[in-house]
Amino acid sequence: MAGKLAAFHEFRSRMNEKLLSKGNLQLKRFFNLDSQVYIGGALSSQTKELMGLVASAVLRCDDCITYHLIRCAEEGVTDAEFFETFNVILIGGGSISIPHLRRAVETLEEIREKSAKGEMAKGRNREGLKGRMGETGKRRKEQ
Amino acid sequence: MAGKLAAFHEFRSRMNEKLLSKGNLQLKRFFNLDSQVYIGGALSSQTKELMGLVASAVLRCDDCITYHLIRCAEEGVTDAEFFETFNVILIGGGSISIPHLRRAVETLEEIREKSAKGEMAKGRNREGLKGRMGETGKRRKEQ
Amino acid sequence: MAGKLAAFHEFRSRMNEKLLSKGNLQLKRFFNLDSQVYIGGALSSQTKELMGLVASAVLRCDDCITYHLIRCAEEGVTDAEFFETFNVILIGGGSISIPHLRRAVETLEEIREKSAKGEMAKGRNREGLKGRMGETGKRRKEQ
Amino acid sequence: MAGKLAAFHEFRSRMNEKLLSKGNLQLKRFFNLDSQVYIGGALSSQTKELMGLVASAVLRCDDCITYHLIRCAEEGVTDAEFFETFNVILIGGGSISIPHLRRAVETLEEIREKSAKGEMAKGRNREGLKGRMGETGKRRKEQ
Amino acid sequence: MAGKLAAFHEFRSRMNEKLLSKGNLQLKRFFNLDSQVYIGGALSSQTKELMGLVASAVLRCDDCITYHLIRCAEEGVTDAEFFETFNVILIGGGSISIPHLRRAVETLEEIREKSAKGEMAKGRNREGLKGRMGETGKRRKEQ
Amino acid sequence: MAGKLAAFHEFRSRMNEKLLSKGNLQLKRFFNLDSQVYIGGALSSQTKELMGLVASAVLRCDDCITYHLIRCAEEGVTDAEFFETFNVILIGGGSISIPHLRRAVETLEEIREKSAKGEMAKGRNREGLKGRMGETGKRRKEQ
Repeated sequence: MAGKLAAFHEFRSRMNEKLLSKGNLQLKRFFNLDSQVYIGGALSSQTKELMGLVASAVLRCDDCITYHLIRCAEEGVTDAEFFETFNVILIGGGSISIPHLRRAVETLEEIREKSAKGEMAKGRNREGLKGRMGETGKRRKEQ
Repeated sequence: MAGKLAAFHEFRSRMNEKLLSKGNLQLKRFFNLDSQVYIGGALSSQTKELMGLVASAVLRCDDCITYHLIRCAEEGVTDAEFFETFNVILIGGGSISIPHLRRAVETLEEIREKSAKGEMAKGRNREGLKGRMGETGKRRKEQ
Repeated sequence: MAGKLAAFHEFRSRMNEKLLSKGNLQLKRFFNLDSQVYIGGALSSQTKELMGLVASAVLRCDDCITYHLIRCAEEGVTDAEFFETFNVILIGGGSISIPHLRRAVETLEEIREKSAKGEMAKGRNREGLKGRMGETGKRRKEQ
Repeated sequence: MAGKLAAFHEFRSRMNEKLLSKGNLQLKRFFNLDSQVYIGGALSSQTKELMGLVASAVLRCDDCITYHLIRCAEEGVTDAEFFETFNVILIGGGSISIPHLRRAVETLEEIREKSAKGEMAKGRNREGLKGRMGETGKRRKEQ
Repeated sequence: MAGKLAAFHEFRSRMNEKLLSKGNLQLKRFFNLDSQVYIGGALSSQTKELMGLVASAVLRCDDCITYHLIRCAEEGVTDAEFFETFNVILIGGGSISIPHLRRAVETLEEIREKSAKGEMAKGRNREGLKGRMGETGKRRKEQ
Repeated sequence: MAGKLAAFHEFRSRMNEKLLSKGNLQLKRFFNLDSQVYIGGALSSQTKELMGLVASAVLRCDDCITYHLIRCAEEGVTDAEFFETFNVILIGGGSISIPHLRRAVETLEEIREKSAKGEMAKGRNREGLKGRMGETGKRRKEQ
């Protein structure tokens, strides 16, 4: 990966590792729980990641938006679905969310470019972005 | 309807009417747009209302939560789906969202009781809660 | 005064007094500063109170909205001006601000009724709502 | 208990029970984690509850403020300490936090009255307010 | 234009274009409405842009602050008026808004430098910053 | 100092100076009050700075987090205490605070490196970070 996604990915992995190695048991449990919650159940993983995207955007956290854009794309969310989600964000969160949507569009573009080159993971095997715990697949086994 | 739902419904309808009658064209357009955004398209209306619920909860607006709980129930969201949504809210928004979830559970209970008595609208014909514009069905025709 | 405005007024005065009597010098200074900031200077007091209304609404604090609605009305803000302000709030803060606008419309209605009966203060002599420090006029002398 | 504290306590207990009985494993884990985090370790439980009070106030959640006021009082926080904490809240969160501080002062007054009558728990044995999980003492054993 | 303003301007224009070209009708309507709301009516455009600045600052969105600083300057807001507005922001939003004010002061300085060189638009003909829809003047004709 | 801390420090000092030189009396008073509030009294300065860290993190202001991390370190807060504080932030503010904690861990690492080299101030004489008013020590004398 190159560009902003790669930088995001590298910093996120490196710092999550530090947080988890220095943090106590409770911090690990929170991270673990944060992974479990997005696993498909009564609602699909795709729907939950879209919810995560909406929450991230109305709370206006760019890194969280980037994370959920990647995960949504891995779960097969289409551009049409993304833009309808942006409308829900915009009407609910107001024009204050526009700068975040501008950056989201840029990120989405980079995601689509990488996907076209086969550099993004797909669905359940996603290898592009390691799970929240920093290890691919782990989040599925732990529940 | 009786109880909190009825009070919510009555105040909401009465004040929306005042807002719309006194407000200018832009306010009407915003309300209209707020309705259009939740109509099913690439994403189903159910998914969008669930997104609306998540946004309302992490932004911590009880009236908005009540509105989207009703709309989600009208669109057929099950208790299992609601509780998985609550988990996404809780992990994303933190313990600060717990008091809102306590009130949401109480509201959901009242919704289910009314549903059992046939007092809630179902799906597309929902007559229990008038559309955001204050007139049932209108939000579907205007797009 | 009667109704919600009177209850707001009574609780606010009583509790501000307790805060200020129990609080230390820094709390008093903050309250004092909070009054000084809204006094007319390069910008009129009316413009500043309208700004306070916008801040209160996008941060979604009903009591703060009530306070600034009263102060704006005292400074002569018209209904047309209020509704244009509501539009700025709505577009900036999103649909999450609608429930607050519904309550604002109700409060504004009560303010106008009281005004018609001569029960609200006008402009600079406002006696209806005591200054933030709990004593009419004091906020003007202290700077 | 009587008054607002009793109402808060009753609703909180009843609804937490419903959330936990209907909620899945992840919700229970979150609630459990929410209790563990406030147990004394490198930082005392008192310091952590004061932190919880600050977080609750700047995020402007009245129920959370009430909860942490009770817990802080149980951990022996004095009025002078509370008012210095209010100053940190006020300067950091701005005048938008004043209405919450007004309500906090009222709640604190009720807490002190109950304490004087021996109706509040003290320190570690606090029986007035059951732990976050709804069972006294449980939060200490589970870590 | 050079420096931060130019970078802001370039990214904003390019991404708004992408949002609007990929987005559906509702997104366009929101952007259009966002422009209409700030047009002078009962309240002057200057007052509304100042309100937009306050909303942006207390909601802590740097890009939104930059946008409204530019628009306010175009509408003739003086430094004295800006600094009184900063006081309203500071007292209402708290010390958490200070880092945003530091960046605002830097932006304002760049705006004034460009103005001195004749590189900023003035009032109604503002050509420096294209309207929210990405086309100068359009926002005035569409209402 | 080098790296991010030095850049933070330089920009903060330079812009605070501009804010204070251009700002009126009220802005100066706010900055002054912001310093006074953190001086030890019934609560120690350490406890108050930890509160400031919690407020900054749940309100999600990176510059404020950096400031309070530095001040906490100056007041002798240990890594174990910082990580327990991060847990309170995480559980209260939710996963939306994780990106801020990632950046906090990086900042803390730089602080510890500088401390090891004797480049950070300790406790009351802290010379590394000038007081909020931009002048070392001043904040203690002014109360």
